[in-house]
Amino acid sequence: MDMQTSFRQRLIAEGILFPTGVDGLFGRDGRFEAVFDGIDRAITAAGLGDGAEVMRFPPAMAQQTFEKSGYMKNFPHFAGTVHCFCGDDRAHHQLMAQMARGEDWMGDQQPADLVLTPAACYAVYPIVAQRGTLGDDGHLVDVSSYCFRHEPSLEPTRMQLFRMREYVRIGTPAQVLAFREDWMRRGQAFATALGLPFEVDVANDPFFGRVGKLMADNQREQALKFELLVPVNDGLGPTACLSFNYHMTYFGDTWDIRTADGAPAQTACVAFGMERLVLAMLKHHGLDPARWPLSVRETLALG
Amino acid sequence: MDMQTSFRQRLIAEGILFPTGVDGLFGRDGRFEAVFDGIDRAITAAGLGDGAEVMRFPPAMAQQTFEKSGYMKNFPHFAGTVHCFCGDDRAHHQLMAQMARGEDWMGDQQPADLVLTPAACYAVYPIVAQRGTLGDDGHLVDVSSYCFRHEPSLEPTRMQLFRMREYVRIGTPAQVLAFREDWMRRGQAFATALGLPFEVDVANDPFFGRVGKLMADNQREQALKFELLVPVNDGLGPTACLSFNYHMTYFGDTWDIRTADGAPAQTACVAFGMERLVLAMLKHHGLDPARWPLSVRETLALG
Repeated sequence: MDMQTSFRQRLIAEGILFPTGVDGLFGRDGRFEAVFDGIDRAITAAGLGDGAEVMRFPPAMAQQTFEKSGYMKNFPHFAGTVHCFCGDDRAHHQLMAQMARGEDWMGDQQPADLVLTPAACYAVYPIVAQRGTLGDDGHLVDVSSYCFRHEPSLEPTRMQLFRMREYVRIGTPAQVLAFREDWMRRGQAFATALGLPFEVDVANDPFFGRVGKLMADNQREQALKFELLVPVNDGLGPTACLSFNYHMTYFGDTWDIRTADGAPAQTACVAFGMERLVLAMLKHHGLDPARWPLSVRETLALG
Repeated sequence: MDMQTSFRQRLIAEGILFPTGVDGLFGRDGRFEAVFDGIDRAITAAGLGDGAEVMRFPPAMAQQTFEKSGYMKNFPHFAGTVHCFCGDDRAHHQLMAQMARGEDWMGDQQPADLVLTPAACYAVYPIVAQRGTLGDDGHLVDVSSYCFRHEPSLEPTRMQLFRMREYVRIGTPAQVLAFREDWMRRGQAFATALGLPFEVDVANDPFFGRVGKLMADNQREQALKFELLVPVNDGLGPTACLSFNYHMTYFGDTWDIRTADGAPAQTACVAFGMERLVLAMLKHHGLDPARWPLSVRETLALG
């Protein structure tokens, strides 16, 4: 048993994670969720006073919005589409017979008009776009949702369904770059307050296929993405718990969001991988939050 | 414009709900979520001291668990299955061409081994079953998750993705029936503390098809399901915000859960429709929670 397996198995043995029979899909106990809530509060506190608009979204988005986002061009391998049964009594009878024979019945499901949300901020842009040209100050959103990535894994930090919280800045290049620079500082102060060891490094998204390799290289060269990495899985590289992303005009062009001067808006976001942060805390401070350092407990406002 | 449309449109105009382009799929603002959190706290308070085991689940479950649950026999029309792209560069090229031509690309997606969770308690039974025979006291679980039902609707109370919290009792017939009786009382006290008008009535689940009609009649005759109904949508019947469900040995048989005497366990649950409760509060106390009655604000522990 390697050390990485051991952390996952300890979490399961302690009853903190409940396995579900699918890799990367776990139930969570009350201790896990209490830490989650504490981290959520700490993120709110770190952004307090910035006047962000709060948006919370369900785990799926409209197919049409998803298509327009361009996600399938870059990350088709991660997407999860939602399909349903639209048949009558006769079709239902056939479905039940298929299921009884152990045959594939899911292949006969019909596409619904829903796709699982790939990243929390994807739901934000069309809503902001619909409001028309931005004001002089641009806009700032505090968003979260469950996100889906189809990448079954034994690493507990790589869940297929996980919660992502983000601050999203939409505005001029100066506004957006200042936001990212500010949050790269705040993000490190945040990790320090949580008592986590970390490093910040340039990174790339896991683009698909041959063309994706070029996209990833380009993203690194332009330093569009940084990650705050925490060692969580022993024997593997560190885990990205926060990311600081600069999209230039990608979403502004896609959704035709314009700044007060009529130019395409730029966007940036800081994204918090919530389950990963909880796991990082459990890894570094131990599986019993009641015994964590007082300063950490205070940061999380744990009773 | 009828009154029901008007409530939904007021919620949207006030910026409390964000439409997404799909009926029954909404984003929510900070006010909505603050009320949600308050109701969540009040449910915890109402169950405090009962020693429930906390379980929280992501919005999807294993296909195998879902199949075994029997959901597709009774409610195939509500289920949402998750599908993914498993192709190579060439298949991806074709997919992008389909999408560019506005053709159906989702129909080519392949079944993943995941199904959206139809009810929070479905994830609980296999986990409890795996632990072996119940102790003398049976078991009590506090569970919640996002749930999916494919029923696009203009009623804001009928969301396709919504959060359900439940207390689930597993044990002998006497334990389970006492739990349901107790919670039918507590549920009414809960609604009273929230300042909501309500009635409690026998009900049935929306079983599918011709056979489903018989199932529904049977469920009513045996009084297996009660609902706590609150008027929310003007011009329509009241909305089930809580339900009190007695499953007899359905899940005990399905998952081979046994009580200390070796008999199949019975189960019952009280389920809280979280978004529906928030909407009921907004309907009856107004769209500005800051102006709600002090007693209600105290029940929800709203700062």
